[in-house]
Amino acid sequence: MERLDLLARIGAVGDDGGITRPGLSAAEDDAHALVAGWCEEAGMAVSRDAAGNLYARPGGAAADAEIWSGSHLDTVPSGGRFDGALGVVAALEAVAEVAADRPGAPLAVVAFRDEEGWRFGHGCFGSRCVAGRTVPDDLAERDSAGVSAAEALAALGLAGPPVDVAPPAAYVEVHIEQGPILAAAGAALGDVAAIVGMAGFTVTFRGASGHAGTVPMADRRDAFSACAELSVRLRERALAIPGAVATIGDVTVAGAAANVIPGLVRATVDVRAPAVEALDLLVAAVPAVAAEVAVSNRCGVDAVRGWRSEPVELSGRVRRAVRTAAGGLGVPIAEITSGAGHDAGVLAAAGVDSGMLFVRSRNGGASHCPDELTDEADVAAAIAVLTETLRSLL
Amino acid sequence: MERLDLLARIGAVGDDGGITRPGLSAAEDDAHALVAGWCEEAGMAVSRDAAGNLYARPGGAAADAEIWSGSHLDTVPSGGRFDGALGVVAALEAVAEVAADRPGAPLAVVAFRDEEGWRFGHGCFGSRCVAGRTVPDDLAERDSAGVSAAEALAALGLAGPPVDVAPPAAYVEVHIEQGPILAAAGAALGDVAAIVGMAGFTVTFRGASGHAGTVPMADRRDAFSACAELSVRLRERALAIPGAVATIGDVTVAGAAANVIPGLVRATVDVRAPAVEALDLLVAAVPAVAAEVAVSNRCGVDAVRGWRSEPVELSGRVRRAVRTAAGGLGVPIAEITSGAGHDAGVLAAAGVDSGMLFVRSRNGGASHCPDELTDEADVAAAIAVLTETLRSLL
Repeated sequence: MERLDLLARIGAVGDDGGITRPGLSAAEDDAHALVAGWCEEAGMAVSRDAAGNLYARPGGAAADAEIWSGSHLDTVPSGGRFDGALGVVAALEAVAEVAADRPGAPLAVVAFRDEEGWRFGHGCFGSRCVAGRTVPDDLAERDSAGVSAAEALAALGLAGPPVDVAPPAAYVEVHIEQGPILAAAGAALGDVAAIVGMAGFTVTFRGASGHAGTVPMADRRDAFSACAELSVRLRERALAIPGAVATIGDVTVAGAAANVIPGLVRATVDVRAPAVEALDLLVAAVPAVAAEVAVSNRCGVDAVRGWRSEPVELSGRVRRAVRTAAGGLGVPIAEITSGAGHDAGVLAAAGVDSGMLFVRSRNGGASHCPDELTDEADVAAAIAVLTETLRSLL
Repeated sequence: MERLDLLARIGAVGDDGGITRPGLSAAEDDAHALVAGWCEEAGMAVSRDAAGNLYARPGGAAADAEIWSGSHLDTVPSGGRFDGALGVVAALEAVAEVAADRPGAPLAVVAFRDEEGWRFGHGCFGSRCVAGRTVPDDLAERDSAGVSAAEALAALGLAGPPVDVAPPAAYVEVHIEQGPILAAAGAALGDVAAIVGMAGFTVTFRGASGHAGTVPMADRRDAFSACAELSVRLRERALAIPGAVATIGDVTVAGAAANVIPGLVRATVDVRAPAVEALDLLVAAVPAVAAEVAVSNRCGVDAVRGWRSEPVELSGRVRRAVRTAAGGLGVPIAEITSGAGHDAGVLAAAGVDSGMLFVRSRNGGASHCPDELTDEADVAAAIAVLTETLRSLL
């Protein structure tokens, strides 16, 4: 908990305690340096790859068939102190403890770069470099200040991908749940069965702007009215599919004024589902429902899909190890699906035996904000279970 | 039409031809000066009151029981060339023609200041000065540059209200319809029976912001989802009340991001109805429906009413004069309700025999934008009907 507090001081810290530590920034680098120091104090050999990912090995050099544990050290804008950081400091505790009994075991603590991805628009940069899943855009994209990812890497003395790193035999990531499910289930920990698939859309309704007083209701082509119907109907669709979610997160009314009928509205739609069939249903629903509500509101519409990632099942071998460890320690654990993307999902999709151990979130699962909270006792339980999991995977 | 073109060059003119001539600005003053010059050329005596309202009298000095005609010369941001200006230049034509036959008739062309009201937040400033309906805020309010209305008046050499002007015996205002009804009815002109009553609300939904992936649909407190339901339900309510309209014109999602469930959403709601009972229904519906959708979305809500104005019936005497004049000239005219506020409504509420003559809008009733359009033939018909109306009112 002390280490989480120290990491929470790195980066831009708001009056409310919110931490902003962008991926591939000097602040992220400072966090990596702090963790590297702790790992060296624990007797580990620290190295970094061309993407800046941190590796700390109690056995010294890299070995075959390594077992990795870790997460990331960047944050969202005004984020909390647990997201990412917990997985790294938990791995450090667990790996050090296992190595105390088994010096030379092929273990590594890892911290991946730029998992959040908001700065350059693509998440899980570091783990994708390890998995060989980068795209040309990764280096070309620019942040809001006009700095490209390639320039940000160079400023940190990093050559960037490709990286010369062999993926591990297995990877276990501890992460806060970021949701209310484990708290509702009375479970300290979550055995993550899968990471949802997701897709993002930008939906633009084009109606006719007009005077709020002089155009009868029946003659209107109100773009916000169309967007509102889309929200109501997509909510119904998502509620009907187990585990699925649909979110309209950002809505912009062009030329908005209290006495003007909206003529142009742009909305983002984020849909997620744990199974490919359910995701297919939702992905098909967005343009279909958008077209229906456009017709009923006499608007035009464009529904453009920006990205899609497939659901990923996590490793049965790692899940069994996690379940057995929790059972042996008497820690209540519940099966759960991750609604957020994680580095573990990237490695799993690339064929690595990957697993995740979720830790119960408090404050209703508040996430990506300073209210993010997880109890110290649950963190201790997670470290204990992770330690036993790593032992059994060796 | 030439005069409208000349007025359309005064103020800030955008690439799309949109004109920005704020109330109580130097640009509005320039427009007043141009019109004053035309009135003097027509042999009228020009004066202005302490609020800057323009009066042009063919008979020279002010008289008892005057008949006024006019409108305003300010515009909305990026407005069109007809709104306001048409009523002033039409009045100039009609008053000059009547006075040619009846020199000394108690007629006046008037141009009221700051009808649109967006600069300082209160509409119909000039006519409210004449009607004695100003509020202390009128002078204290500041524009976006920090200039108060009192300072703006002083910069134009105006003392501001109270004004020493006797209200007229009758007032007739020609104005574009700003909607599609007359075009649909095949009528060049509209006999305005009433000006709708209206009220404005700011509705704020407070839910819980959260991760778009990790909070199940059933656990969400999505503030945008609540706002969307409000939109759908208010639309249904307004459609069920003849002549009523409800508009959500401006919507702000706080901390909006594609992958964040909206926790705080603020929306404006503008409701209007031609009868007091219908307005009461809608005004009561806004907080009631907001409370219902807040409950169904597990959000808190504040629905704050910012302003309300009552429906105003226009003068039977003026309406009969308008109908008779149109009938005599064979101009198709339809009864209509004004969905927008106008200076005529202010004078009517203060007891002046006020009437309005709407002129058919083209382009689907496009209004408050450069696409605003009215045919020259319809303008000519309006001037002819106004001329006969003024004759019969004398």
